[in-house]
Amino acid sequence: MAVRVDLNISLDGFATTADQTPENPMGEDWSRLVAAYIATRTFRERVLHDASGEGTTGVDDSYAKAYFAEVGAEIMGAGMFGLHSFPDDPDWRGWWGDEPPFRTPVFVLTHTAPRPPIEMAGGTTFHFLSATPEEALDRALEAADGKDVRIGGGATVARDFLKAGLVDQLHVAIAPILLGGGIRLWDDLRGLESGYSVTTEVAESGITHVTFRR
Amino acid sequence: MAVRVDLNISLDGFATTADQTPENPMGEDWSRLVAAYIATRTFRERVLHDASGEGTTGVDDSYAKAYFAEVGAEIMGAGMFGLHSFPDDPDWRGWWGDEPPFRTPVFVLTHTAPRPPIEMAGGTTFHFLSATPEEALDRALEAADGKDVRIGGGATVARDFLKAGLVDQLHVAIAPILLGGGIRLWDDLRGLESGYSVTTEVAESGITHVTFRR
Repeated sequence: MAVRVDLNISLDGFATTADQTPENPMGEDWSRLVAAYIATRTFRERVLHDASGEGTTGVDDSYAKAYFAEVGAEIMGAGMFGLHSFPDDPDWRGWWGDEPPFRTPVFVLTHTAPRPPIEMAGGTTFHFLSATPEEALDRALEAADGKDVRIGGGATVARDFLKAGLVDQLHVAIAPILLGGGIRLWDDLRGLESGYSVTTEVAESGITHVTFRR
Repeated sequence: MAVRVDLNISLDGFATTADQTPENPMGEDWSRLVAAYIATRTFRERVLHDASGEGTTGVDDSYAKAYFAEVGAEIMGAGMFGLHSFPDDPDWRGWWGDEPPFRTPVFVLTHTAPRPPIEMAGGTTFHFLSATPEEALDRALEAADGKDVRIGGGATVARDFLKAGLVDQLHVAIAPILLGGGIRLWDDLRGLESGYSVTTEVAESGITHVTFRR
């Protein structure tokens, strides 16, 4: 039962991008950042519901598989659910599709008015709560029933949990691109490595996978 | 004949550290940042004049060898020579020892009063000039006589040359540590990769070597 963070970041450390628009809510840069991940067979099956069997099956795919394995609950920020983009739409159900890839309880951190949970197809239920990282983690650990809890993001939420010392495993997939702007994962994390062992592996795609494990 | 930059940076992108004192001009963090490089046989021979044959001979050492190979002239900032730390000492000869590892002409960029060149043992001569990156590079290319020119650093100088599009090859050795402060190499370099092919290799030490080549 571990608390895990998995994020895609650029070589200059940005975990989010700065070119989002309502028409292109992920932005162009996001595609560049996650291209190798999106190309994996696991992402295509799990997120795009593509049963063709196409997609890469190398190092990136092994991390994509691990991303989804053994997760019993997820915590994400309001921005990752899309509440910041659609704050006044009580019917907004997130931009993860009718059958989101999580297939677990997902706890969405928000300071806005309470919302009822949303049950989606495939096993995902979104719960909304205003809570500290510790409180949210308690809820998620209970829901995970012995499995791992993933802090899904975005970068600010992941950093809050890292700074609070709540994360057992941090995996970053570093794309060899420079975004020059966005939210930095690494701000205010001096010496983070001292509590972890760190391993690094380069994928065929050129993505560098760095893993911090307690 | 290429213009090259080689730098040691932290995972959070800092190429210089923030804990220098007159007593410890490199600082504690610097040791952590360059530990794997200092452990190489090449560094021990070339910089420490240690002829014992000790030191690592793996991936890090191959980059250390390449660091010194085929360089005909070097450009560095005033800080890397130590002028910022000893601005009023006309007899300051840099903190690279009596026999500096460069063994080529070294052009030190400074806006302070002109200084005469300093000829050191082993083939290194320090020249001081107030010049744009383009002007300094012209001088260095002439002095290099067909060999490579290395932009030695610090981070701000390296970034100036990268931003000006003057660098053919950038190699960064990324230590899996978070410094949380210092000077960032990657600021204002959005899209740098578009003019280069990028390769990545992980050393036995855990250092990730990323190379941008035109």
